Amino acid sequence: MAKIVLLGCGVMATALAVPASEHPENQVGLIGSPLDDELVRAVRQTGHHPTLNADVPDTLQFRLNSDDSAALLSNADVIVLGVSSPGIPWALARIAEAGAKPTSMALVTKGLVETDNAGSAPLTYADSLSASLSSPEGRLVGIGGPCIARELALRIPTRVTFASRNLHVAEELRTLFQTDYYRITTSEDIVGVEACAALKNFLCIGVSAMVTLHRLGDSHAKNPVAALFNQAVHEMAVLADWLRQESSDRMTAAAYAATVAGSAFDLAGMGDLHVTVGGGRNSRLGNLLGTGQTMSALLDGPMKGVTVEGVDTGRRLAAGFEKACQRGELRATQFPLTRSILDSIVNDVPFELAFTQLPG
Amino acid sequence: MAKIVLLGCGVMATALAVPASEHPENQVGLIGSPLDDELVRAVRQTGHHPTLNADVPDTLQFRLNSDDSAALLSNADVIVLGVSSPGIPWALARIAEAGAKPTSMALVTKGLVETDNAGSAPLTYADSLSASLSSPEGRLVGIGGPCIARELALRIPTRVTFASRNLHVAEELRTLFQTDYYRITTSEDIVGVEACAALKNFLCIGVSAMVTLHRLGDSHAKNPVAALFNQAVHEMAVLADWLRQESSDRMTAAAYAATVAGSAFDLAGMGDLHVTVGGGRNSRLGNLLGTGQTMSALLDGPMKGVTVEGVDTGRRLAAGFEKACQRGELRATQFPLTRSILDSIVNDVPFELAFTQLPG
Repeated sequence: MAKIVLLGCGVMATALAVPASEHPENQVGLIGSPLDDELVRAVRQTGHHPTLNADVPDTLQFRLNSDDSAALLSNADVIVLGVSSPGIPWALARIAEAGAKPTSMALVTKGLVETDNAGSAPLTYADSLSASLSSPEGRLVGIGGPCIARELALRIPTRVTFASRNLHVAEELRTLFQTDYYRITTSEDIVGVEACAALKNFLCIGVSAMVTLHRLGDSHAKNPVAALFNQAVHEMAVLADWLRQESSDRMTAAAYAATVAGSAFDLAGMGDLHVTVGGGRNSRLGNLLGTGQTMSALLDGPMKGVTVEGVDTGRRLAAGFEKACQRGELRATQFPLTRSILDSIVNDVPFELAFTQLPG
Repeated sequence: MAKIVLLGCGVMATALAVPASEHPENQVGLIGSPLDDELVRAVRQTGHHPTLNADVPDTLQFRLNSDDSAALLSNADVIVLGVSSPGIPWALARIAEAGAKPTSMALVTKGLVETDNAGSAPLTYADSLSASLSSPEGRLVGIGGPCIARELALRIPTRVTFASRNLHVAEELRTLFQTDYYRITTSEDIVGVEACAALKNFLCIGVSAMVTLHRLGDSHAKNPVAALFNQAVHEMAVLADWLRQESSDRMTAAAYAATVAGSAFDLAGMGDLHVTVGGGRNSRLGNLLGTGQTMSALLDGPMKGVTVEGVDTGRRLAAGFEKACQRGELRATQFPLTRSILDSIVNDVPFELAFTQLPG
């Protein structure tokens, strides 16, 4: 029997609890953040998660932040960080105050974190959180891959990657979460998976701009979107390599080689980019950007108050990326898409990408 | 100055003539097949290509099959096979009777050809045509990548790959065709490019079935499509490796290594699959297949009389694929998507793909 606790009751944490709850030997609890009170009360009353717009299994225990969950957390075998980036300090505090020592911890939160050393590569949460977590090194599992939360909650099939520096930990966690509809591959490349999971939101903005930039009457042109999807996967793979090399969580040469060969077919990269371009906030921003409006006009207009993860990722990436190009660690000409998106985010330049900039 | 002759006046040949015609030093002619007479007369009269639904540059010379084109062909520096598969014998006969000796020949036609040796891998046109062509070995160039013909004719940007066993030949041809909107990468992997160009039509059928197989009210679920897109790219890369190994056009170890590493980001594979899933006959068939109808019912019903290249490719692939699995050259468990599509094409089984079949 495994005791699984998810911190956060948002759409992704709740959706991930659904396959976990299919295993009768699991006990699955979710602890809401201070912002989740209304959500938790609604789920408890109706069995329906309002933002997920799906019923939830009645075996899931939903707790308010104010409930006493110390025993739940301190007895947990697995803790899942299921909050969005701003919720991380809250989640870490709950773990610390309960003195929780889970066998493994899984990361749903995605994003990049700047280091104190301005101009170096940003870190993924796999690196930035490992110091703060009581979990022994290598017990951290990153989750990536195409996974719209509502579809998972409705048990529509998908396939994702659980990545851990220690492959056995990822495999253990797979046995607790895998179902017929939630298929899990495992990988040692936690930094690569975390990097792709963040970068895909950022690169999606540029690919989605192609949808509106080239019109064909009432529909959109498809060649430019496909060509830039391809370019985005390429840039993502090279950027992920860069983040990996700067990571303290260095991989063995063998694991690294296996990853480079496999990165092409990465669910956390190409697969998740596919679903992200297909809809959501990052793609909506990109579609609008393709119509010629500036980023500031959009973030202060139609996207006002909407959290667009890809923009945050771009901001974390910008300084280190520029320095790495100046130092010659990265070749600027390999990144026409990254540079165009950064130009819109950092310099508020209307999005533009001449195909002559693509590597010849 | 280069004299470029395209055999065939269909949508793809005509579209490809557009960027070639932007170079003032090129002379570009197109010769219609016996089936193209009406098309050629229409273009000559109106300057508009009716099936392409686009105006064509007035510098393009359109010829009827009955016109005397012997001199045009025998003086050609570059000949492009721009017909679909059934037109190949006609095109080869025209080349032979004119005694044409072009410096290079480009292949737009895509498909697989069974060998006399039943049970071996099918050949790409890069192999099957090299014997029939008067062009010196290694002067053949395969063209792949996301390229809807009408978009190219309307000068909407895209990016493609020109592949030749002899990289210099591909690079020479690039100088004759590249424009601001038609961007060309080069590769030595002509068999890989030709394999992907054919296989993407076949694999598209299964990915497109996912669009209709899992519904969410009025819209479709996106996770299964993304997960299977990822799987399709993976299966395509392994199948392309298999065709490459069976090809007489063996690559050097160095070229092969460069290709395997780069195949992930292949415009002819992933990029073209993206555009193919986005629309067209293969994706339409796949969408219909996902609703539960059998292949025979579809090919005799809503798709009657429509050439679906992916079905032909599957038929060419089937026997060799099965034998290769039996011999252990290919591992059947790596190909759940390929096997599901083949089951529908060969055994008329309603399309089904349990996600539990995907590699764990």
